[in-house]
Formats: sequence, structure tokens, C-alpha cells
Amino acid sequence: MRAEILTIGDEILIGQITNTNSVWMAQQLNQIGIKVVHMASVSDDDSAIVRAFDDAMTRADFVFITGGLGPTKDDITKKTFSAYFNAPLQMDERVLEDVSLFFSKRKRPLTELNRNQALVPQGCFVIRNPDGTAPGMWMKKNNTVFISMPGVPYEMKAMMTESILPKIVNENNLPKIYHRTVLTQGIGESTLAEMLETWEDALIHKNIKLAYLPQPGLVRLRLSTFGPDMQVLKNNVDGEIEKLEAQIKKYIFAYENYGEEPPTIEKVVSDLLRERGQSLSVAESCTGGYVSSLFTAIAGASEIFKGGIVPYANITKHTLLGVDKQLFETVGAVSEECVEQLAKNVRLKFNSDYAISISGIAGPGGGTPEKPVGTVWVAVAGKEKVITGKFLFGDNRSRNIVMTANAAINMLRKFMLETV
Amino acid sequence: MRAEILTIGDEILIGQITNTNSVWMAQQLNQIGIKVVHMASVSDDDSAIVRAFDDAMTRADFVFITGGLGPTKDDITKKTFSAYFNAPLQMDERVLEDVSLFFSKRKRPLTELNRNQALVPQGCFVIRNPDGTAPGMWMKKNNTVFISMPGVPYEMKAMMTESILPKIVNENNLPKIYHRTVLTQGIGESTLAEMLETWEDALIHKNIKLAYLPQPGLVRLRLSTFGPDMQVLKNNVDGEIEKLEAQIKKYIFAYENYGEEPPTIEKVVSDLLRERGQSLSVAESCTGGYVSSLFTAIAGASEIFKGGIVPYANITKHTLLGVDKQLFETVGAVSEECVEQLAKNVRLKFNSDYAISISGIAGPGGGTPEKPVGTVWVAVAGKEKVITGKFLFGDNRSRNIVMTANAAINMLRKFMLETV
Repeated sequence: MRAEILTIGDEILIGQITNTNSVWMAQQLNQIGIKVVHMASVSDDDSAIVRAFDDAMTRADFVFITGGLGPTKDDITKKTFSAYFNAPLQMDERVLEDVSLFFSKRKRPLTELNRNQALVPQGCFVIRNPDGTAPGMWMKKNNTVFISMPGVPYEMKAMMTESILPKIVNENNLPKIYHRTVLTQGIGESTLAEMLETWEDALIHKNIKLAYLPQPGLVRLRLSTFGPDMQVLKNNVDGEIEKLEAQIKKYIFAYENYGEEPPTIEKVVSDLLRERGQSLSVAESCTGGYVSSLFTAIAGASEIFKGGIVPYANITKHTLLGVDKQLFETVGAVSEECVEQLAKNVRLKFNSDYAISISGIAGPGGGTPEKPVGTVWVAVAGKEKVITGKFLFGDNRSRNIVMTANAAINMLRKFMLETV
Repeated sequence: MRAEILTIGDEILIGQITNTNSVWMAQQLNQIGIKVVHMASVSDDDSAIVRAFDDAMTRADFVFITGGLGPTKDDITKKTFSAYFNAPLQMDERVLEDVSLFFSKRKRPLTELNRNQALVPQGCFVIRNPDGTAPGMWMKKNNTVFISMPGVPYEMKAMMTESILPKIVNENNLPKIYHRTVLTQGIGESTLAEMLETWEDALIHKNIKLAYLPQPGLVRLRLSTFGPDMQVLKNNVDGEIEKLEAQIKKYIFAYENYGEEPPTIEKVVSDLLRERGQSLSVAESCTGGYVSSLFTAIAGASEIFKGGIVPYANITKHTLLGVDKQLFETVGAVSEECVEQLAKNVRLKFNSDYAISISGIAGPGGGTPEKPVGTVWVAVAGKEKVITGKFLFGDNRSRNIVMTANAAINMLRKFMLETV
């Protein structure tokens, strides 16, 4: 079954608000096996709405409409709905009770405008709104179901979850959909695509679709499939992921299951530290506090994060973290020797199990022919060992910072896995 | 002039990513006087894309398309574009140079897939991509201009700002538009709106539109007007801003001029430090490195930022920054006494002119009846004086971190202005 999501309201078209309703609805519909084939946003304008309805009818079995149901004059969805289905508005007594209760509970008077919220098109299946005053409306035309809901996110979500989705699942025999996403770090999108070409070409025979979703320093690989039997879908996708692992295991840091929050690399490492009862500290120069801020953004960070130092001025690498002063004259602060000392010493200072240290040239200034902008040294220290790595990123400062953080945190993850 | 925004990619339709590109583009187009009449999202499917192109042509003078330009097989926008305009793909030598440079800078090989990024439809006006490998494409059909861009937000934004918007403004006789935005910190949106009610009501007679743009801890007030004579527009808006200053001067930390990057509060303070040849260090607990990362995100940070310490575990406030151990037993780490000592000592450790210190309860855990989640103490130290402030933010961890950073940095800004 195919669906379209239609958002009505000028606030979307002038860029005043981000359309988060559509994302949420798409996720929910996907989970019950309904494919969203189109999303559109139109203004509070009668002819634009009618044209969108007509277009949607040619593409979709269900049209999910939000917005334009408020009591004020700029909201015209209900009037347009009534005219489109040739169904005059009439008072729905049950909705009027809901609306009256809504205002009496809040000790506010029931005005004429509010009473009119209980008018619905004749023959409409009414969806009650437990959290607001505008009811939802379900109407059918030429085999397409049109469902109109308020644009207020929590009102829409309650109606979808409590009434609309269960009704759709009950009344239709829906195919199942299954997605799984593989999260990789340390390899570019195109290199990955070339490595996986043969594997990727074979996916079509299994009815599996692959998408590459790049972020700075990371690439997510999403496998999607649909069919009648969820177990078969899972086996197919998971089987392909096993083959994938054989090829690119060293780049994979996590899996994202559909409907779950995508795991960040710092969350993966935080969880690993928490499981083992271990802790971390950080000495970061060119990332300037960003790595620490990633770990401390996670609730409960104090269980695993002891603290960090940002020795931004070279002299503070010496005064605060005991880096040999002569290094700055010989190999420089962006060097293996420097990050090695930083990692060892910050770990001791914070008395943590592990430490990450970073020194590099974020740019745009500060590059030399030998150490161009984007050159970064990272070290990871444990109780018995220090490992180091050199990276060369690009010339964009903010990307360099993000890519360095991802690379450094993944270095710690691998180090931890090797030192079980 | 009317525009349509079209997003291509399955990741939108399955609800995997939120469509923030459309919001940003709508804002930019609005500012140059182009009305967005429709937004749509379709999948990476040839017939869906062609149908969306046909529909857009009947509604809009400009169609802004993002997505589907990656080098991998799931991205089909360029192929569809080429077929739609009946314009075979051919190698663009200038783009090939850009792409080759992109990879050689990163010391990565130029693969066949990467080379193909330089293929563009015959007769297409090529928009260079300073931050990636997929060029933008500008084609015209039946008086409608179709502009295809990559879906990666920072690539799209750079192309829009540097090439596409200026080209549109130059080639069309658009009415002049003038915006100026006043940036405030430390006052909520609704309190501000109540204070400004009379002033705001009078704006309508001057054809000036006011928008409140809230962010965590900040509110931006945008004044917009349009007409044929830029000088008249400027005089009108600037006159109103003078009246505004008389009312809310103490909350204003900067102004955003049209077409300029909006100044962040950390940029304002960085510039002030740089002008005076002064420097800063930071000791931050509940913000966990976030304040340091804000300052170091700015190019040239090493001129003004000496470094920071994140003494996340209480004991490290004592061992690294000399906070009196007994404090933790008596008033606790979230206290005026603690931040005072942190600020004084971190300033001395880094030998900086100023220091910021922060200690608070970001949440969701750790609150008590006396110090609920959202309680934060901030201190700012100069050579001769330390000032402190207590804040009570909300119960959302990530908002608390951002609001604390904004409040602390603005405290330093005011402190600096008083100690000229």
C-alpha cells in the first residue's frame, strides 16, 4: 500500500518551522509496511490544497494530511475538505462534548469559534483528539483514503498512535518492511562503493535496496526490503550483512535497527566503558573541547568520563601535561611524540583507565608543506600501552574537527576491543 | 517570482532524516523576495522525479532540487536530469579539475566513479561545488529554471550563498529587500514580546515585518522590509532599531546585517579579545568542553584562547584546579565558592587575561530539592575582580548545556565592556 504525506500551512513554506511531523509519520507508516511515495507541503490556499488532493489520489491509497485545522480564518483545510467531498459541515455531538470538556477543564469559556471545531463533513469517520479541540477526519474518494489531522505534533501523534494506525493495520493485509543500517568509520563513500560492487550487484536478486548515507568521517549503509514474512526478510538482510562483515568488518562500529535511535560512535564507546566499569580522560588541542563535549552530552557521563584538558597554547602542553618542551623545537606539537606524552600524562592526571589525545592543524591557517592543514596525530593510552595514528583530512576547519573526533573515538573503541 | 523546492531521496520518505535543507532554502528565498509555493519529496525513482519536474513547471519560475547526486548507483538525479532536458552527459574539464584537486589534496586516488562526478548535461550552466565533488546544474525549460544541487547541507548552502542566490538577484529585477536582526541574550521570547508590544504595533505603518526567532538562551529579532529604494528601507529599519535599543539595550549583544553570517556570541567575544590583544581560559564542569569547543571552532582561535580544563569528576576540581576539598562537603561543587575558585585558578594556570568557570546540574539526574536540575553557577575572572551569577534553566540536558554556554559567554562580554 502506498501513502502520501501532505502538510498544509504557510509556516512551512516560508521556512519558519521544520517539518518534523512528516519524518515521524513516515517512520510510523514504514513500520506497518506502508510505503510513503511522496511528501508535499502547500500553503493555506484552497486551489493549492485541491490540486494536491487530486495529485495524491493518483499516487496513493492513503493521504495523511496535517495542518490548517485551527479555529482562525487562515485555517481552511476543513472547508476545503467539505467541498472536495461534497459533504456539508454538520455538528458532531460527541466531538462537541470533547471540546466543551476541554475548555471547562481549563476553566476557559466555550466561544462560538471553539464550538465550530465540532463541525465535521457529513459521512466523515471522526477521529477523536484526546489532546486538543480539532477532531481528525477520515474520508474516502475513488479508493483513496484522506485523513486530516491537526498540525500540532503531540495531537497528531496521539491520534495516529491511538486511532489511525491500529485502524489501518486491522482493515488491511499489509506487507512487512525491514531495514537495517550498518555504521562505518574511516572509509570514504566511493572507496566503500568500489569495494562492495560485486556484493551490491547481487542484492537486487534478493529484493534488497542499498543506500549510502555519508556524514563527516562516517558512512551509514542502509539495507531495506519488504515482503509478507518478517522472518524471511530478516534472514535475507542479516545474511547479506554477514557477507558484508567479511569484507569491511574493520570499518563497522555499530548497527542501527529500524525504529531505534541511531547510535553515535561516542555512545558506543560510552556504553562499552560503562559495561566494563572503566573510565576515560581526554587531552585535545585542535579539537578544542569537542571530544569532551561529545562524551559529556550523554546523560550519566560522570560514570565514565573523568575530565579533559584543552592545552591549546603550546606552552600549556608542557606546563599542564608535562610534554617535553624541546619537542616544540624539534618535531613540533603536531607529532607522534607529543600525542604520546599527552595521552600518557592526561591518563595519569585524571587517574582514568584510558585516555585520548589529539594534536593537529584544523585550519584554515597554520599549514606547512610538510604538515598541511588537516594533518592530525591521535594517541590512545591504556594502562600498559599507547597507540598512535596519523590522519590527513581536508581544508575545512569544522569538518576537520568532526572527522578527527570520530577517528579518535573509533581508535579508542578498537583499542578497547583488542584489550579485553 | 515563485519557487518550488524538491527533495530527492528515499532517506526522506522513510523518515530516516529530517528535511532541514528545505527550511533553510525557504528562508533564503524569502529574503530575496521569492515566494515558495510548493515543497515536495520524492524517491530516487526516475518516473517520480520526472512527474515532479512536470508538476513543478506548471507552478514555479525556479525549481530548487537537492539530493541524488552521489557517485553511487542509488543516486539517479543527474541521469534523469540529462534525459529530461534531452542533453547528453559530457565531461566538464573545469569540474574535473575541481574533483581531481579534491582527491589529490586528501591524498586519495581519483577513481572512475569520482571522475564521473565531472559529467554534466550538455548546455548546462555548471555551479561549482567548493566543498564536495558533485557540481550543481542549472537548466531551463519552458521559462522554468531547474537547479540541481547535492543533498549534503553544507555543500548545498555554499553553492546557494556563493553562486545561485547572487545569480538570481542579478538576473532578475527583484524588489529590494532589507533585513536587520537584533540578537539578544538573557530574556525569553514572551517577556520580550510584552515589553515591545507598543513599539511592535507601530511597525505596520512603516511596512516593516517583525519576526521572533528563538534559540536556546537567545532570541533574534528580525526586522524586514521591501521597496524600490534601498536607502529609504535602511533608514526606516535603522530608525526603528534605535527606538528598540532605548528599551532593551542591556539584552542586545550583536546585530546581524543582511547577507552576513549571523554573529554568534562567542564570535563577538573573540573579536573583542582580539581587538584588545587579550586572552581567555575556561574551567567548565557541566558544559563538559562545550564552551571551549565554541571558541576553538572559530578560525584563529589560538590568538585569544589559551586553553581549558574540564574537571568533570569532583576530585579533579581539587587536584587540577586547587578548589578547597572541604567545599564539596559543605556547599557542594555547584556553588558560588566553587566557581569563584575555579575561575581564579584556571586564569592563573593558563596565564590568561580572563577566565570563565561553570559548575551546574545539566540533568536528567543529579537534582535535589535545593539544587534542582538546571541549576548552574558561573564565574568570570579578570586580573582584579571575579563576578559570579546563578542561573536556573530547564530539565533538558542538551538545552541546559547550550543555555549555560550562552549565558556564561555573555557574562564575560559585559564584564569586558565594564572594564575597558
